Amino acid sequence: MQRPAAGPREAGAGAAAPVRVGILGLGTVGCGTVNVLLRNAQEITRRAGRRIEIVQASARDIGKKRACPTSGIALVPDAESVVRNPDIDVIVELIGGLDPARALVLEAIGQGKHVVTANKALIALHGNEIFRAAQERGVMVAFEAAVAGGIPIIKAIREGLTANRIEWLAGIINGTSNFILSEMREKGADFADVLREAQRLGYAEADPTFDVEGVDAAHKLTILAAIAFGIPLKFRDAYVEGISRVTRLDVSYAEELGYRLKLLGIARRTESGVELRVHPTLIPRRRLIANVEGAMNAVLVKGDAVGPTLFYGAGAGSEPTASAVVADLVDVVRTLTTDPTNRVPHLAFQPDALEDLSILAMEEVRTSYYLRMHAEDRPGVLADVTRILADLQISIEAILQKEPAEGESVVPIIILTHRVVERSMNAAIARIESLGPIQGRVTRIRLEHLHADWH
Amino acid sequence: MQRPAAGPREAGAGAAAPVRVGILGLGTVGCGTVNVLLRNAQEITRRAGRRIEIVQASARDIGKKRACPTSGIALVPDAESVVRNPDIDVIVELIGGLDPARALVLEAIGQGKHVVTANKALIALHGNEIFRAAQERGVMVAFEAAVAGGIPIIKAIREGLTANRIEWLAGIINGTSNFILSEMREKGADFADVLREAQRLGYAEADPTFDVEGVDAAHKLTILAAIAFGIPLKFRDAYVEGISRVTRLDVSYAEELGYRLKLLGIARRTESGVELRVHPTLIPRRRLIANVEGAMNAVLVKGDAVGPTLFYGAGAGSEPTASAVVADLVDVVRTLTTDPTNRVPHLAFQPDALEDLSILAMEEVRTSYYLRMHAEDRPGVLADVTRILADLQISIEAILQKEPAEGESVVPIIILTHRVVERSMNAAIARIESLGPIQGRVTRIRLEHLHADWH
Repeated sequence: MQRPAAGPREAGAGAAAPVRVGILGLGTVGCGTVNVLLRNAQEITRRAGRRIEIVQASARDIGKKRACPTSGIALVPDAESVVRNPDIDVIVELIGGLDPARALVLEAIGQGKHVVTANKALIALHGNEIFRAAQERGVMVAFEAAVAGGIPIIKAIREGLTANRIEWLAGIINGTSNFILSEMREKGADFADVLREAQRLGYAEADPTFDVEGVDAAHKLTILAAIAFGIPLKFRDAYVEGISRVTRLDVSYAEELGYRLKLLGIARRTESGVELRVHPTLIPRRRLIANVEGAMNAVLVKGDAVGPTLFYGAGAGSEPTASAVVADLVDVVRTLTTDPTNRVPHLAFQPDALEDLSILAMEEVRTSYYLRMHAEDRPGVLADVTRILADLQISIEAILQKEPAEGESVVPIIILTHRVVERSMNAAIARIESLGPIQGRVTRIRLEHLHADWH
Repeated sequence: MQRPAAGPREAGAGAAAPVRVGILGLGTVGCGTVNVLLRNAQEITRRAGRRIEIVQASARDIGKKRACPTSGIALVPDAESVVRNPDIDVIVELIGGLDPARALVLEAIGQGKHVVTANKALIALHGNEIFRAAQERGVMVAFEAAVAGGIPIIKAIREGLTANRIEWLAGIINGTSNFILSEMREKGADFADVLREAQRLGYAEADPTFDVEGVDAAHKLTILAAIAFGIPLKFRDAYVEGISRVTRLDVSYAEELGYRLKLLGIARRTESGVELRVHPTLIPRRRLIANVEGAMNAVLVKGDAVGPTLFYGAGAGSEPTASAVVADLVDVVRTLTTDPTNRVPHLAFQPDALEDLSILAMEEVRTSYYLRMHAEDRPGVLADVTRILADLQISIEAILQKEPAEGESVVPIIILTHRVVERSMNAAIARIESLGPIQGRVTRIRLEHLHADWH
């Protein structure tokens, strides 16, 4: 058989000519992308049918020593000039953050260039605007690397599960938080100590807020929910709670009860609206996703036809993220000659077929709960607590009353409840906290069984 | 924004006209496909931008009561007439088996129709011929449903991991076998009893040979290896060993040693050739894939950039398989207007860029082993056995000598070895079996650690 001419019809690109790429930002992921493209050039060309060539890259400090070779790449300090370079077909945006990334991406689109980005904040916050611009200009904006690093989860949901009505998804989509929770469990250590260790090892940033407070996970969840349900990106409506207040005590009580504590991003369709929430969650230890440890990511997706599916892999890091960036590049290369209207839509659904479903307030969400409280060791406390729950129609799944610690008179009480709307639980907790023998605040952690038939 | 015209350029299909599909075979998967397309018609059209319409289907007995509505579908007993129907754009082949499926698929290709198939035997045995024909005719043959049912594993490897040099993959890709092994472990039951139960529940066929002897898994493994490594389909070179000789004793000893027994399909690149093998395998119990239970499937794929990734879901069944069939249909719809040379190549690599790597004979494969033997309880036996292993440079990882059963003088000895080439192990086993105090045959089960750094 003859080698077919790759024949893109884009102006300036001859038959089987390499696709010319410009990278904005040559940091960890940028260098990973360069390294992967160089090392696997042959393998990638054997698949794509064309070479992918990085012709130019921007970096703040172009003289800096880097973890990748840059010979053959024109390094410039000015990202604008890469975006405007008429010799470049595709822009890879790896600067991160909103400013100037947003302006650069919009400018690239305006120049008729396709864009590949790993920028979850940008997509979660400005994706609606960006995709609209891309749609009008007939270019693609690919963002596989924005969610769960090297796991091809965007592709899986958007193309692999097209037959399904997606009912819900739940993901471990922040590696830093998962690493910290795994270490807290394995070492019986406190959050603050493990965070320091994670920072030393490079698993957590100097300012860890976005990771440990759930913001990063909420960015990714927002994107997953949009492509799963065919709704616009609604980051501002997400409920976001991180792991910074999780104690080693709760981690170990959870284990004792057969559960594991994970930071989950959950998106779920209900009759009254879409749940979009990130929070620490107890899940049964026997679930596959409960056994995802360290900095790894995993997303559990429930489709009505396929049932539960799980996608697991490295959620961050130089080459895992580069793996997703390069996969997007190859996808872009392959669809250069496709009628724009026949390309996979950015948000999986045709732009005029998005449904503006409302996001449920957290108060309206129904879930199960783990409650931990400390009570003076005297008769009647448990009766009062369970009476409050009963009055609010909250049924109890399990109670664990621990011995008071040596020389103390305060006993920890742990209660697992069945599902109830969060508003009722808020009311119950307020009443329990007002009981005389209850000391301090009640700790509340949500609990999900992630049954295949949850819908 | 205006709704763009879908505008396929195929003869006979007007702008945004529905894509007309003909199904060969209206059994479990055929009816699943009809049901999913009907139930999720709106959702699917919102994604694909065009309706997918089943206009004709063939079934041996067209009067039979079915698990799906067939109004609006012209039912015919003759598959040929569907394949030749000029009103049909895409043929979905769900007959299974080689004959007449092979002839029908080739005929459909000859007619210039795209083909979607769930037929793993057909692809594993005749894929090279079929893809050549499709390539020449400029049509697509999509086969996501042929491997691991609803898990989009073909798409993940072929498109999601394009940046990677795939080093190895290991999969639980036969649900029947995994169900049987799970039940044997949970209930401490024998193979034959569990098989009967599986047949009663519909998890195993009346003639279970293909499933329990590893043939079905080998079909799927052959396909995965081809798209992972860029090699032709080489089913005949695969090593195939099923689970029919696995005993509950081995399942329980494996657990005791921290391992779980699974039927794995393993494909791995080595410097001397490609490993392509299906056999019962001990894997560390803490690995995620070791915890895939029941009829579920999972494939672990190791890429050099992304690291280990895992894809999990239902590997069979009416709607999970239909989920993959319909995803393929949507893919086909989307690339109708794509230059054939820019489509994703059937075997992931451009047809002229396949590499004809040779498959290693099982004798040349290096793996670790679990050995179980029974010896008379007298001094010196263990010394003789370990001497034989030492002479052949086989190092021992663990030894477990059990008490003789009540009133017996024969003791079971279990040995775990480090990695060694299978030829040496064959020699060792022959010598051990010739020792006087060793009773009967030595049971040998291969053991893999599936470390991220296995390469």
